[in-house]
Amino acid sequence: MEKSSNFSKWRAKIHEVIYGTHTRTGKLFDIVLLMAIIYSIIIVMLESVESFDNKYHNFFNISEWVITILFTIEYILRIVSVKKPKKYILSFYGIVDLLSTLPKYISFFILDTQFLAVFRALRLLRIFRILKLIRYVGESNKLIRALRNSRSKIFIFIFFVFIISIILGTVMYLIEGPDNGFKSIPQSIYWCIVTLTTVGFGDITPQTAVGQILATIIMIIGYGIIAVPTGIVSAEYASTRGKSPNKENSSCANCGSDIIMEDASYCRKCGHKLNDE
Amino acid sequence: MEKSSNFSKWRAKIHEVIYGTHTRTGKLFDIVLLMAIIYSIIIVMLESVESFDNKYHNFFNISEWVITILFTIEYILRIVSVKKPKKYILSFYGIVDLLSTLPKYISFFILDTQFLAVFRALRLLRIFRILKLIRYVGESNKLIRALRNSRSKIFIFIFFVFIISIILGTVMYLIEGPDNGFKSIPQSIYWCIVTLTTVGFGDITPQTAVGQILATIIMIIGYGIIAVPTGIVSAEYASTRGKSPNKENSSCANCGSDIIMEDASYCRKCGHKLNDE
Amino acid sequence: MEKSSNFSKWRAKIHEVIYGTHTRTGKLFDIVLLMAIIYSIIIVMLESVESFDNKYHNFFNISEWVITILFTIEYILRIVSVKKPKKYILSFYGIVDLLSTLPKYISFFILDTQFLAVFRALRLLRIFRILKLIRYVGESNKLIRALRNSRSKIFIFIFFVFIISIILGTVMYLIEGPDNGFKSIPQSIYWCIVTLTTVGFGDITPQTAVGQILATIIMIIGYGIIAVPTGIVSAEYASTRGKSPNKENSSCANCGSDIIMEDASYCRKCGHKLNDE
Amino acid sequence: MEKSSNFSKWRAKIHEVIYGTHTRTGKLFDIVLLMAIIYSIIIVMLESVESFDNKYHNFFNISEWVITILFTIEYILRIVSVKKPKKYILSFYGIVDLLSTLPKYISFFILDTQFLAVFRALRLLRIFRILKLIRYVGESNKLIRALRNSRSKIFIFIFFVFIISIILGTVMYLIEGPDNGFKSIPQSIYWCIVTLTTVGFGDITPQTAVGQILATIIMIIGYGIIAVPTGIVSAEYASTRGKSPNKENSSCANCGSDIIMEDASYCRKCGHKLNDE
Repeated sequence: MEKSSNFSKWRAKIHEVIYGTHTRTGKLFDIVLLMAIIYSIIIVMLESVESFDNKYHNFFNISEWVITILFTIEYILRIVSVKKPKKYILSFYGIVDLLSTLPKYISFFILDTQFLAVFRALRLLRIFRILKLIRYVGESNKLIRALRNSRSKIFIFIFFVFIISIILGTVMYLIEGPDNGFKSIPQSIYWCIVTLTTVGFGDITPQTAVGQILATIIMIIGYGIIAVPTGIVSAEYASTRGKSPNKENSSCANCGSDIIMEDASYCRKCGHKLNDE
Repeated sequence: MEKSSNFSKWRAKIHEVIYGTHTRTGKLFDIVLLMAIIYSIIIVMLESVESFDNKYHNFFNISEWVITILFTIEYILRIVSVKKPKKYILSFYGIVDLLSTLPKYISFFILDTQFLAVFRALRLLRIFRILKLIRYVGESNKLIRALRNSRSKIFIFIFFVFIISIILGTVMYLIEGPDNGFKSIPQSIYWCIVTLTTVGFGDITPQTAVGQILATIIMIIGYGIIAVPTGIVSAEYASTRGKSPNKENSSCANCGSDIIMEDASYCRKCGHKLNDE
Repeated sequence: MEKSSNFSKWRAKIHEVIYGTHTRTGKLFDIVLLMAIIYSIIIVMLESVESFDNKYHNFFNISEWVITILFTIEYILRIVSVKKPKKYILSFYGIVDLLSTLPKYISFFILDTQFLAVFRALRLLRIFRILKLIRYVGESNKLIRALRNSRSKIFIFIFFVFIISIILGTVMYLIEGPDNGFKSIPQSIYWCIVTLTTVGFGDITPQTAVGQILATIIMIIGYGIIAVPTGIVSAEYASTRGKSPNKENSSCANCGSDIIMEDASYCRKCGHKLNDE
Repeated sequence: MEKSSNFSKWRAKIHEVIYGTHTRTGKLFDIVLLMAIIYSIIIVMLESVESFDNKYHNFFNISEWVITILFTIEYILRIVSVKKPKKYILSFYGIVDLLSTLPKYISFFILDTQFLAVFRALRLLRIFRILKLIRYVGESNKLIRALRNSRSKIFIFIFFVFIISIILGTVMYLIEGPDNGFKSIPQSIYWCIVTLTTVGFGDITPQTAVGQILATIIMIIGYGIIAVPTGIVSAEYASTRGKSPNKENSSCANCGSDIIMEDASYCRKCGHKLNDE
């Protein structure tokens, strides 16, 4: 029983180090993890540059093993120290953490050159480690909330962009034809989106006079409707901001959970009455 | 007379299936139609890719006939079940629905290779079937209302964009001349709009120093005035939004019609007093 | 004296036709002028297309003479019918109207092929006729007012864009050098503005790794600061709009002058009290 | 002692000329300095154009010496006339002023052709003289304040742009591969940012169908999320603006310092009560 109590103490200690940000060791853990993630991302990126890979192949390989073992330990400690391990494993961060360790181990077993393409894709999965960084930004962010609130409107907007692109892309295909680079309707639609979003690669450009006139119209439509998502997000953001700017990023004094709704008078978790400052 | 009553019952049933969205059969009909439209659009797009067309020509042809017959039945049922068939036929959706069926039938009669270009254009008319999708988004949409309200201002804005483009395009033609790709004034105007809208294909670029200075000015104008439509739509959207956010997408409890004006206190259709939540 | 009275009557009549928009002849005059301007612009543009000019040279020449004579008559009538001819001649529209007629007359006298470049530039001056169209949009426009109010801020913004472009352009010149297309500092600055405004022609692109990293930073700066003019115009526009939307484009019932300030209670010209609708 | 008093008088005089903007000599000094800066920048830029440098090398050299000596005198006078010379020397403007003079002197000593690259970089440091211009815009600017207030949010936004770019860039590298121009992950990320920010150089473009579909998604994300910084700055700007528009750029009547907070009722420097106009 004493052992169990010791273990429970040790677990609480680990939990504090990993999840806490107020103690010194908790901060240190965060900084080490942050650096490991960034270092790992840089390794993955540089490995893909052929000249670097030829020179520093061994160094990259060893670095990768060190990082993988580090992340494995972190993953195990997180499972051990959390109260509901199942919930963590199936959560977004749980999957990201797992994906951060697995690829290197699998690469150990699959050495068969037959699956090279699959293997290459698998190895690059490690780039998703960057999602671990999101932990440090926090989810109670206003920005994300404003985006989430205007989600349905942005969706409708993108839907209209697609309808316009499909119709105008088809018309462009009809006008310009395969001889001028508009080889098929899907490619014309691709060109139309490139133009409408004002990206304008220039790999395909209209050559006929009629095509250029239509291109002009597409550009002006794109230039005009960029206002729509901006208008939506601006209005949404302004409305969430205007209501009570001093409650921003506040948290319930009773239970400590974030206050998500700006106009909340009671904590949505524990029902504690919030003070109007 | 009994027969007539039977027919009227049957018509009401059909109407419910086609136009209703609350019954199970009504929902099923909507889903089938939605999938048929998307499937049809994909067929039209893939047909234009030569390699696909060579391989699956017969499959595409049969698919197209099946979809055409399906849409024909839908079109006839809509005419039969609606109270004022004439109004429906001449409405936006009536024309879209007709255009969704006609092309394939006409292609049956015109086999003459002389009219190949016309025929090809006609076949691609089928892409307009995508407009059928708009039915599922609804017209009482705030977005469209904000755009419609700021229509005249956006029009004036586009008008000024054109004036600037015509003048600066002509000046660019004068500076760069046909030798540097600015072959004629219309083409220079085309380039000017490409630059002003920040699309920037790069198929035509200024080569002289003076031309590059003017191009710089055009870009900065374009970069600056993109703020104008955004400002208009933002302000318009914020004003329609700000008034009573909780009435959004609400409908009259008495007659079920959409509440269009945000600040309405009475239903504009039946005069039923609306509750202020 | 009777003659003078007749002349004064005739002058009032002319004034009504040219400046008035409420009488039938006034409207007709406006429509004819509008069409003449648009027709004239199209002629100037098509003349620059070599293949058109070779075919229809005579037609273009005659059309141009007809339009020039028409605009000359309009110009003379405007001078005659207006009360202060001097003020009109020196006004913006007076100069535009004069520039609309002069080039063709001058082209009659300068046939010397020596001044071909000057002559060509002169002929293209006719494109400025498009500025005549602005008369039909009206100056009491809210859009222009919002832009004018935020003028100084937009100016400072453009000033900062220039400073950023000059510094980063110079650094890019240092990094990439003449071998990679960055031939001189002015050209590097040109490239920097092309990138910062998200136009991105692609005629010059960074080739070195360091150059691409800096280019990435420039793009993200450009992508971020596009928000600044938008924010300024949005806020300015929203503030002019919010105050009294129903007074938009209204005019004083007493003296007929435009009501510029939205929150005006008295006409700023004659002091007449304005009704709050 | 009299001498000291004379010196102190002379110092006050110099201070007035350099820092004051209300006296005639103060204004003249500002105008001369402004012109010297602009002239200097133009010289640096034109020097980099090979054809100009060959022709006017001597002229450029002499101009540069004149400007350098002028800026040296200005720098010394600023140190002499200011009360806390140390603070000025270490301030932003102090460093800029020093950097404006140093390069030419150093170029005098380093004539060794070995350090040509370093020397070239050093010479171009002179372009930073443009930062001297910021003095004339003023720091109490609302624009900068709005940007500074929304700094943290813009930072998070850029952070998300990077995460999206790294992940999608890696996926694009996997899809397209080195054969289609996506040579390495860093380069794919570079391409992804070029596309996401709607710059679209077109030096690298997706060639496969899957790559073009993903590119389409990246473009629409970029087109959509441009709304986010705009929304942030708009809301921030509108909130700072809305409070009391007529106090803008005002200054305390008592001590003359800028009024930074819009809703200030008392001067934050001297406590003088501000009038509500």
